[in-house]
This record gives sequence, structure tokens and C-alpha cells, in this order.
Amino acid sequence: MRVLLIGAGGVGTAITRIAARRGFFERMVVADYDESRAAAAVAAVTTEGTAATAATAAEGAGAGRQPEDRFAAARIDASDEAAVIELLARERCDVLLNATDPRFVMPLFRAALAAGAHYLDMAMSLSRPHPDRPYEECGVKLGEEQFALAADWEKADRLALVGIGVEPGLSDVFARYAADELFDTIEEIGVRDGANLTVDGYDFAPSFSIWTTIEECLNPPVVFEKDRGWFTTPPFSEAEVFDFPEGIGPVECVNVEHEEVLLIPRWVNADRVTFKYGLGADFINTLQVLHQVGLDRTEPVTVPGAGGPVEVSPRDVVAACLPDPAALGDRMRGKTCAGTWVKGTRDGRPREVYLYHVVDNEWSMREYGSQAVVWQTAVNPVVALELIATGAWAGKGVLGPEAFDPCPYLALLAEYDSPWGMRED
Amino acid sequence: MRVLLIGAGGVGTAITRIAARRGFFERMVVADYDESRAAAAVAAVTTEGTAATAATAAEGAGAGRQPEDRFAAARIDASDEAAVIELLARERCDVLLNATDPRFVMPLFRAALAAGAHYLDMAMSLSRPHPDRPYEECGVKLGEEQFALAADWEKADRLALVGIGVEPGLSDVFARYAADELFDTIEEIGVRDGANLTVDGYDFAPSFSIWTTIEECLNPPVVFEKDRGWFTTPPFSEAEVFDFPEGIGPVECVNVEHEEVLLIPRWVNADRVTFKYGLGADFINTLQVLHQVGLDRTEPVTVPGAGGPVEVSPRDVVAACLPDPAALGDRMRGKTCAGTWVKGTRDGRPREVYLYHVVDNEWSMREYGSQAVVWQTAVNPVVALELIATGAWAGKGVLGPEAFDPCPYLALLAEYDSPWGMRED
Repeated sequence: MRVLLIGAGGVGTAITRIAARRGFFERMVVADYDESRAAAAVAAVTTEGTAATAATAAEGAGAGRQPEDRFAAARIDASDEAAVIELLARERCDVLLNATDPRFVMPLFRAALAAGAHYLDMAMSLSRPHPDRPYEECGVKLGEEQFALAADWEKADRLALVGIGVEPGLSDVFARYAADELFDTIEEIGVRDGANLTVDGYDFAPSFSIWTTIEECLNPPVVFEKDRGWFTTPPFSEAEVFDFPEGIGPVECVNVEHEEVLLIPRWVNADRVTFKYGLGADFINTLQVLHQVGLDRTEPVTVPGAGGPVEVSPRDVVAACLPDPAALGDRMRGKTCAGTWVKGTRDGRPREVYLYHVVDNEWSMREYGSQAVVWQTAVNPVVALELIATGAWAGKGVLGPEAFDPCPYLALLAEYDSPWGMRED
Repeated sequence: MRVLLIGAGGVGTAITRIAARRGFFERMVVADYDESRAAAAVAAVTTEGTAATAATAAEGAGAGRQPEDRFAAARIDASDEAAVIELLARERCDVLLNATDPRFVMPLFRAALAAGAHYLDMAMSLSRPHPDRPYEECGVKLGEEQFALAADWEKADRLALVGIGVEPGLSDVFARYAADELFDTIEEIGVRDGANLTVDGYDFAPSFSIWTTIEECLNPPVVFEKDRGWFTTPPFSEAEVFDFPEGIGPVECVNVEHEEVLLIPRWVNADRVTFKYGLGADFINTLQVLHQVGLDRTEPVTVPGAGGPVEVSPRDVVAACLPDPAALGDRMRGKTCAGTWVKGTRDGRPREVYLYHVVDNEWSMREYGSQAVVWQTAVNPVVALELIATGAWAGKGVLGPEAFDPCPYLALLAEYDSPWGMRED
């Protein structure tokens, strides 16, 4: 397998570090708009990373192969489809792994199809709110533009595996696993994400991009019900306190727009599907205040600058006031939990379980030099690539993670030093 | 009396509208950095304002004199002391009324002294926090730079009447009135400010400058106690719910840095003096979030602009996201209350009163075209000028409103269609 990884930010860099310990692929080209970021990611797995990776790789499928032979850096503009097609061809890549932000999903998705490559991403094409009833009806749904091209992918006999990070991704695998192995009927599948991460020296320092968090949290949240289909609610609706495992404890969660709600009902039979994010009461309050004051807006406002009035986006100013989350790993403490809560019946009796995956920041920093949230996202597409490389997962068209057999996935994930858990409620 | 009014913002403009109905002065020159603002303020009292002002002025001391003869507009840079001295001399003004923001207090205060004019302002020279113990000890206090020049004013036989808006100003007059007329001993004087103003069409729209509000509310609040002197506390300390009169009702109030705490103890004997602002729980929360995210900062941050990175002050961006409070009068509803709560004894028995002044926005918009908060501030320096013009108030040096006899002041205020009230608790 020859992989073109596009995006050498936090998640892309963590992908190279995780992949370097595995032998299933022949080559990974790391491409970024900023070539120095790509080069830095490659250098980390071929120099200071070598000792650790060589030792671990010896136990993997590619035993004996030096990781430094396999990685290369390149420059790419992810919005330039022709350039991406050309790079896929030149490097003879069978698969494009997209680790950029969601604005670049469609050009990369189309480029892979045109080049005859498989495609993986961790976030799907963006939604647009309903023009008149944004908090009641869906407008353009997350992933809708991608599913519109499903027939073309089938015809080309190529696989677009969409939403294969941790959430969406592992959360969808959990949903399918529950349906296959744990339940006869399912009343609700609720993805629940929570953490107890803190950052030393900051009153307020989100562990992920505030720009993206605002986008995610202030978009109308989407909910699926079997008899209503997909519909939306106001932001921060249906607040509940969810008790997270492994010492994280209770966190206030609210509905947030997320891919799982669009993916799970396509392959798994459930009366209701939701996604709730454990933002916590303080963070929700912060986002609400930013929204009330209008600081979440992206349209420019005019403010005094040193040489006269300048136009800036308020949301960019919010981001500029906060520390860069990718650089906070050393100051972070705590754990992050992703998981899927399922309620239904088994053998005629009510059942409720929470399938989950916890990463301790101290462990991910020590083992991989990546902060917990970033590492937890990155490990999943590497596992999926390995399943595709070995043939354990095969398909064509535009498919979510829940379209595949969850068992080999969960088994392989545990092999990556990354066990998952289940709590019977 | 010939007056130089500097500053034709909301308060300056309201001053011209109030003064136009009174006959005690011969001339009022309205000067602003933006001459068009000064010209607009003058035009309003000499054209569409004429009908109302002429009718009312006929009942005043200047009956028969047309207000349009008395007003003129000029351009001035309030930070340019030499230019202000020159304008005072050219227009032969006896008094400078400062209606600019507090950054210009010192140049205008020094210019008036140098030109031999009396001086009035509504906010005093700015404080600076204690370098090491900002929330325990005072650094440079509000007005400290002005009081440092008191001997020069006395020597020049000129009066600097400082802090003569509504708060400080009328609130200080109330304190002196309570001490003279209502109490034998005073345990605490607490200025309390609250409103029930709302703005149609906005979730969040402060009725006063957000820039100044942040400055006021995030500075360490100052408290006076007879046996400790002046000291500071953390922002938003000593929250209490105060019940405001005339239908406003209970509002959450917190300690805020304000001039009365520095002025009242100089002339009035009280064990404790505080200022609490009825910001309400929501507004306090908004300010706390802005502070946590770092959006209250004035030091520039770097953000993307249309032509590359630009530097902007986050606090300016917050202000740019919100509507201009001076332009909200038509959409505002409700009342604003300023007042002084006093606790002590009279004839050996405990006594507690609240002396207050309420303005209904609907009334101030109809009568003067000025929103309530702005009008309530503006009426007080006009009353004070009239007392100085008639000789009812006379003095030299740097004096606060509580240095004078409160009785003629309160009587004249009522003549301005602006009654004050007293609640015996």
C-alpha cells in the first residue's frame, strides 16, 4: 500500500508517528501547504523517532524494514484538485488519507476519485443551515455532498471510507458492534464525548481549535429519529450530565452537530441517534457569551489599526487571544474519552451499555509526543488503513465505518496499545 | 458666564440640549476632535430644537434671548494643552466643562488652570493598580493626579469641581445631604446604581461604552474604611441584590472602582464608603468570560487581514461587534436609577435611607432626544454651572460635589424637571 497523507498539522503528524511503528504499508508521502510542517513530521519519524519505531516495528508485519525508507515530504495546496491528482499519480499512491480541515474535503474527495485512489477522511463535507427554519429542519447535511457521488465511487470500484477518526470513526464502529453483538432491538444510540483535561497556567485554554469548536457548537445540532428522519434543534439543546469512566466522572453534555448522527442510521437500525459533547457548563457559557456579543462571527468588522482602520474577522481575534492547542501537550493533564452509549433490549430484557476509548495525555505525550485528543483521532485511520491493506475490510462506494465488520477493527485497535472498554449500566 | 464645552459625544450633546433651555450663561462653545459632531450638536439646539427651547427659555432666567446666539462649534484636540489654552483665551471663557473620556482629564485640567478658567469634569484622572498587590492595596488612585495640584488651584483662586456628573456627582451631593440633614452618625455610605433598560432587537447591547465598562469593571474596586483607609478587592466582590425604586426592582450589584469612594471620605464623616454597580448576573458573566478569553486586553494581537497579518486591540474588536450605545435610544426601554444608600443613626435610633434619581428613557428621548443614561449624566454639570453662575456655589481649589451645600443643588435639580426621591428603609 502506498499512502498520500495530506495535512501535517497535529493529527497528520500523530498519524506518521503511529504509522511508523506498523509495517503494513510500503510508502507514506506527507504533503502540506506548508512543506516545512510536512518535512518536520517526516524528520521526527526518521531521526529521533527511529529508536522507538524500529524496536516496535520489529514486532509488526513489516519487521526489519526501516521506517525512514518509507516516508517522504511534499508540498500541496489541498484546494488544487489537479495538483492532488498529479501527486497521487506521480507517487503511485493507492489511497489518499485526508487530515486537513473540513473545508478541503470536497476537492480531495474528488481528486482521489479522479485518480482512481481509495479515500479516507475524519470529518465530512460541511453542512449549511436551513434558510428559514435553521433550528427545526436540516438544510444541506454533513456529508451530503459526498454521498451524492456514491454511485461514481461504486462504478469506479473504489472505496471512500468517510468519517474514520475517533468521532466520527471509532464511535461508529462501536454502534455497529452493539447492534451485531450486544442488542436485539435499539431504542437510542448516543455518542458521548467528555474529558477532564486541564492546561497548567491558563484559566481558559481549549484543547482543540476554538475556530472549529465554535463552528461545530453553534451550528444547529442534528438528531435522527426513525419516524421523523433527520431534524435540527437550537444549539446546546437537551443538556444532560453523563458519567464518564476511568476517573473522568460527570460532565455536562449537550447536542452538537456531528457526523455520527448522519452515518449510523444508514447502516444500523435504531429508533434515535444523537451526539452529545461534554463541553461542561463553563465552556458552554463561554461559547454562548461569544455568540451573544457577536465574537463568533467570521464576517469582518472594522477596527482601528496602527495605520488606520483595518478589517478583521472577530472569530480570528478570539483564536489569536488563546494559546495554540497543538502546542499545549506538555502543560495538559488528564484524560479524554470518546464512546457510544446504547439503550435497547437483549433477550427481551432492557439493556444499556457504554462502549468507550480513553486516552491519558501523560501516556500519549510520553509514547508519541502527541497530546491526547490529537492522538486519539489519529490512531483510527491508521487502524483502518491496515485493515484495508490486509483485506480484512473491503468495499466500494461511499461507506461509513459502521458499514464494516467491527470485530477485526476492535481487535486490531487493542494491538495498537490502545484498548477499548465497555460499561454495562 | 462663557463656557467651553469639550466633547460632543452623547453626554456633550445632551449638555447642549439641557443648557439651551436655561438662561444663566452668555456663550457656550462646543469643541470636539471631530468638528462635525460639535456642529451637529450646535445645529440641533439652533434649528429643530428652537421651538422647544425658546418656549422653555422664556420661563428661565434668560427669557427672550434666542439660544442660537449663544452656541458655536469648534475643532479641538483635547490632548493638546496649548491649543485648549488658546481657545479658552480667544473665546474669553471663564469655565471649561470636560465631557471627553477620562484619558483627556489631565491635559484639560492643566489647560484650564494655565488659562485661569474654572474647570468641571464628570470622571477623574485614571488609576493605576498596585504593582504587586493589585487586589489588596491601591496603586495610583482615581483623581490622585488632580488632587496633587490642589494648592496651585487655590493659589490661582480658581475652582476645579471634579466628578460632577450623576455618579460621581449627584451621588456625592446625596451623601453630603444625608450627613447634613438626615443622620447624626454614619456607618456606611454605599452608592448603588441599577437599571432595567433593555434594547429591542439585541440579545446583548450595553447602554454605555463597553470599552469604558470593561475598564471600570475589571480594575480593582476600591473601598474606604475609616480605620484602614482606602484599599482594593478583586473585581466583582461583595455581590448583593439591591432593590431599586420606581419599578426597577432587585438587581445584583458588585463592587466597582468609582470616584465617590475617593471623594466622599474627604468631606463627609462615615465609617465605610463603597460603590456597587447593578450590572446584573448576566452582564457580570459576560465581562468575566471576555476577561478569561483575554478579549478585554488592549495590547494588540496579530490576526489575518485582507492584505496579510494586522495588529488589533481585542477590546476594540469587542466594541466593534456591539452597536453604538449612543445610537440605541430609540430602541431602549426602561429606567435607570442612580443613588446613595446611607446607614447610621438619628437621635440615637438606627436609620437607613436611599436617596435616588430615576430617569425613564421614554421621557428623556421624547423631551431631549437623549437616552436615559446619557441624559442623567449630562443634567448635573449644567445644574452645577448654573449654581456657580449665580454664586450659590463658590470655592477655590480642587473640590468634589460634597464640598458644597447640597440644598440649593437639589432644589435647582427639581426645577430642571428632574426630581429626586428618598426611600426610608
